[in-house]
Amino acid sequence: MSLTDTIIGKPLATSEEEHSARIGVAAGIPIFGLDALTSAAYGPEAAMTLLIPLGMYGLHYIVPIITSVLILLGIVFFSYLQTIAAYPNGGGSYTVAMENLGTGPALLAAAALMIDYILTAAVGVSAGVTAVTSAVPRLQPDTLSLCLIVLVVLAVVNLRGVKEAGSAFIVPALMFVGTLLVVIGVGAYHTFMSGGHPTPVAPPPPALPAVMKYAGIWLLLKAFSNGCAAMTGVEAVSNGVNAFEEPRARNAQFSLAVIIGTLVVLLFGTTYLARAYGITAMEPTAHGYQSMVSILTTAVMGRGWFYYLTMASIFVALSLSANTAFAGFPRLARAIAGNEYLPHVFLLRGRRLLFSHGIYALTGFTGVILILFDGVTDKLIPLYAIGAFIAFTLSQAGMVVHWKKQEGGVRRHWWHMFVNGFGALATGITTIVVLVTKFTSGAWVTAILIPLLIGIMYGVKRHYSRVKREMADMTPLNLVNLEEPIVVIPMARWDRITEKAMRFGLLLSKQIKVVHIHTDDEDGHLDEVWEDHVMDPIRKAHLPEPELKVISSHYRFVIHPLMDYILELEKENPGRKVAVLLPELVVRHWWENALHNQRVQLLKLLLLLKGNQRIVVVNIPWYL
Amino acid sequence: MSLTDTIIGKPLATSEEEHSARIGVAAGIPIFGLDALTSAAYGPEAAMTLLIPLGMYGLHYIVPIITSVLILLGIVFFSYLQTIAAYPNGGGSYTVAMENLGTGPALLAAAALMIDYILTAAVGVSAGVTAVTSAVPRLQPDTLSLCLIVLVVLAVVNLRGVKEAGSAFIVPALMFVGTLLVVIGVGAYHTFMSGGHPTPVAPPPPALPAVMKYAGIWLLLKAFSNGCAAMTGVEAVSNGVNAFEEPRARNAQFSLAVIIGTLVVLLFGTTYLARAYGITAMEPTAHGYQSMVSILTTAVMGRGWFYYLTMASIFVALSLSANTAFAGFPRLARAIAGNEYLPHVFLLRGRRLLFSHGIYALTGFTGVILILFDGVTDKLIPLYAIGAFIAFTLSQAGMVVHWKKQEGGVRRHWWHMFVNGFGALATGITTIVVLVTKFTSGAWVTAILIPLLIGIMYGVKRHYSRVKREMADMTPLNLVNLEEPIVVIPMARWDRITEKAMRFGLLLSKQIKVVHIHTDDEDGHLDEVWEDHVMDPIRKAHLPEPELKVISSHYRFVIHPLMDYILELEKENPGRKVAVLLPELVVRHWWENALHNQRVQLLKLLLLLKGNQRIVVVNIPWYL
Repeated sequence: MSLTDTIIGKPLATSEEEHSARIGVAAGIPIFGLDALTSAAYGPEAAMTLLIPLGMYGLHYIVPIITSVLILLGIVFFSYLQTIAAYPNGGGSYTVAMENLGTGPALLAAAALMIDYILTAAVGVSAGVTAVTSAVPRLQPDTLSLCLIVLVVLAVVNLRGVKEAGSAFIVPALMFVGTLLVVIGVGAYHTFMSGGHPTPVAPPPPALPAVMKYAGIWLLLKAFSNGCAAMTGVEAVSNGVNAFEEPRARNAQFSLAVIIGTLVVLLFGTTYLARAYGITAMEPTAHGYQSMVSILTTAVMGRGWFYYLTMASIFVALSLSANTAFAGFPRLARAIAGNEYLPHVFLLRGRRLLFSHGIYALTGFTGVILILFDGVTDKLIPLYAIGAFIAFTLSQAGMVVHWKKQEGGVRRHWWHMFVNGFGALATGITTIVVLVTKFTSGAWVTAILIPLLIGIMYGVKRHYSRVKREMADMTPLNLVNLEEPIVVIPMARWDRITEKAMRFGLLLSKQIKVVHIHTDDEDGHLDEVWEDHVMDPIRKAHLPEPELKVISSHYRFVIHPLMDYILELEKENPGRKVAVLLPELVVRHWWENALHNQRVQLLKLLLLLKGNQRIVVVNIPWYL
Repeated sequence: MSLTDTIIGKPLATSEEEHSARIGVAAGIPIFGLDALTSAAYGPEAAMTLLIPLGMYGLHYIVPIITSVLILLGIVFFSYLQTIAAYPNGGGSYTVAMENLGTGPALLAAAALMIDYILTAAVGVSAGVTAVTSAVPRLQPDTLSLCLIVLVVLAVVNLRGVKEAGSAFIVPALMFVGTLLVVIGVGAYHTFMSGGHPTPVAPPPPALPAVMKYAGIWLLLKAFSNGCAAMTGVEAVSNGVNAFEEPRARNAQFSLAVIIGTLVVLLFGTTYLARAYGITAMEPTAHGYQSMVSILTTAVMGRGWFYYLTMASIFVALSLSANTAFAGFPRLARAIAGNEYLPHVFLLRGRRLLFSHGIYALTGFTGVILILFDGVTDKLIPLYAIGAFIAFTLSQAGMVVHWKKQEGGVRRHWWHMFVNGFGALATGITTIVVLVTKFTSGAWVTAILIPLLIGIMYGVKRHYSRVKREMADMTPLNLVNLEEPIVVIPMARWDRITEKAMRFGLLLSKQIKVVHIHTDDEDGHLDEVWEDHVMDPIRKAHLPEPELKVISSHYRFVIHPLMDYILELEKENPGRKVAVLLPELVVRHWWENALHNQRVQLLKLLLLLKGNQRIVVVNIPWYL
């Protein structure tokens, strides 16, 4: 207990729960914005990685591609402004879809969001670690180990529970945005002064030789799909509207505007400068790999203290963005489990008043994903965008239905419907583009996982409904037919533990069957002592006489004839309960179990599996 | 069941046991000799491997070293002739030591023999596979996999049970001895005709350059120790005397003489020819490694069909020699378990009337050893000789005591005592030489394992004695103080499964305590329905009223307060039994367990671990 206490803290009583204070815009921007803003650290690179075969020619395409992403971002921004206004209590995709589109789409949103959270954690951790390995190339071979260490630290911190999480976010978010803005500012200044051709302080690694000169539409669509990873996280504000001070909706909308404005500057700035400085992405598996942001920062500022400060900020900010998944996933799982679509454990609050099973599940899945994809961000991106865009689309499609149902209907809300509908259309098309173009490079994982998850959720719901139907009993206790059970005692020999079982059996019932399995190998002496040691005392005490049943087992099986006998007995006595008394030796040390046969355990298991309502197992322990 | 039937055969009834017919000398030589004879395939090479640093100079030493081994073999031969005469019912080291030297030495012999059997299997398999990889160098990287495949095949064959094992041995043994004798004969002829310097048909791989010119005494002792591996297996005849036709002892002695005579020819012949042909051992890890016998056969006969026939014979014979461990180990384990020094499972006969647990154990240990030592024979040799020589020494030392105890004592049996004593002395000194010289290269494993095994055997004996002492009860059934137990029913809510538990509880006792753990999180409705649904019907039926005990758990723990309550109750009612009724939901598919909390399982486990004689667990299953 003490070790657990040290690592994840003392248990908290239910009454110790604190309701966190409402937050203002200044805190809201880092808290809900970090996830979106940090996408700038890997989004542009994700798009550029696909242009590597074009060598330096790829630079011509990167600005238009990121500009398309920014236009889509603008559309989504206006759409979410309306969602915030309409759902001041928080309008996550799951909620909006459940209210407006029904169960099917809601479960699709739920599955997409769960996968999105897992990938938010995975990408946050892996991109953060990439910042570290870019700065210290010696650590590159340990990428996966570093990812898993960061993941475990996040899990432990979250199992303790994060108090005043808000203030912890402000400094890293400011550092992240601040350092990147300095890089962008200095780089833009040099670019402007040199007429568009700045001289890097330290030269970037040379672009790989081009294997093609022009990009086809397919390659451009793929690059665009990857670049869409830059948009992940923008839905966070709409989920958390009710955390804001009044006027909630206005504050949330203002925060969203600031977040998206900053994101646009970061995305456009880094992309534009990459082109100006002639920076291309590196193969993530290449020796001495650096992230694009690392190369850019080196080119603009050199490898001084500022470079290391920037990389450290990126690492901390990305780790914290992974942390948002740790806040969101358990709550989402709880909401779904509340509707009985996920196991009930997600409803239980652990010792620190958190939904700890959600944290376990997220940590486990994220760990598996990181291991499967070697902790390489670029391999995770194709899986990531799908989940996020399905959620975007469903949330906005739900909003269209929402407006239609409002007073005044289509006539009054046509503009709102148009904005959300346009958003849904744009993100819907993007979802399809991402799915098609990235299918073979990883999106198929998501494409399999989402229906699988939906299937599981339906299955869980069906199971719980059945259990409730079969178990629920609000009728009073039925006392009819209270009849003594038939007691069965398997007995290999007469010793103190079987004596104990006999004594208990005599209490239970007047009808006792002692079963002895006789294998030709053993020289059992039960028959010899039965009359003297068992029957005589019972006759003298005028107690009901037990019956000794000896079964010969020529094949030396013990369990099977016993099971057969019990099942037969149960069949011959319909309506009667059969209580099987199993004397069990409890040893002092676990390894001593190897010295005794485990037939009792096997029998217990078989009785549970093959038994039925009328067979009850009574465990008589004997302590050495 | 059907799959098991196919792989290891249908179960056999105890009455189907067959007593194998007595065997004559012609069958006895291959059956009991194979293990000893096949030592010729790896023994000389084991010694030569250590002379690799001497390059071609090593050839001067090899004949004297093997000659020393042969002298030792002669001493052991005469010693065992006497053992056979004295123990016509089979005189294994364990038996002889137990009868004549007492428990301590007998357990030492037992441990040494068990390790010896494991290494017989491991060395047989690995040396057999070496013959294959020598012939087909492409398979060399798969050495370990091949070893494990052969091991599994042996295990399955032995689990089925080997009928008429004798005849299966004759052909491979003849092939093995025959092909090697042809190689030796042809080689000797060429050597003689060429005046001692035959020209190889195919030149052997050149010796590695010498890094030293003269061997020190330490190196020679090490080479001798390794060469002693050639003696392993000669004790087999003395263990199996009672399998021979009458006159048993004479037939066994004659068989032993033929076996050892053949072994001497094989050992001396291969060694002498290796020297004549200038053949040195290769590093087992070197690319294109071949065993010495493979090089020799190639040099004498070329790489024609005869070469492949020879290698195939070696492979089959060595695999069968590994098989002797599968026959011996389970019997030895059974003999030791019969004295309660090993777990009782070794006494049980499996479905095919074999001591299957011995086969499992041997397969497991052999597999581990093969994996640890990469399936390389030369790495196993240092471990091997120790066990065999300890067994030799104890067996012969036991014989000295045996003769002393016979009628006539020392005066009459001084010659017998001298022969066995001389054997014991020679093998004892060899044991020490092997232990000291091979300690760092692997003998330390055996040196740790043997005392460990002895410790385990003493521990097992102590445990069984204690259990017997505490459990044995030949007193009649005690019917004093038969008092109803106090029944405890943990209840989270009122449903059909808890109703079932209540009904069973009412049968068991007049004193029922229903415990409800109330966590602040749940809105339990048990209190609301308790009066109407439970108490009312009970009062109407004039049954004893159960007590409802509600325990508040502010920290949301359920198991701990329940355990505390049960243990407290037990303490407050000395002398009374406490029966805890645990209603348990049995789901249809194992994965459905994930949808229900596993508190009942945890509670069962805790009650078993923390409980005592007076707490009984009653399992009330509910099937969905």
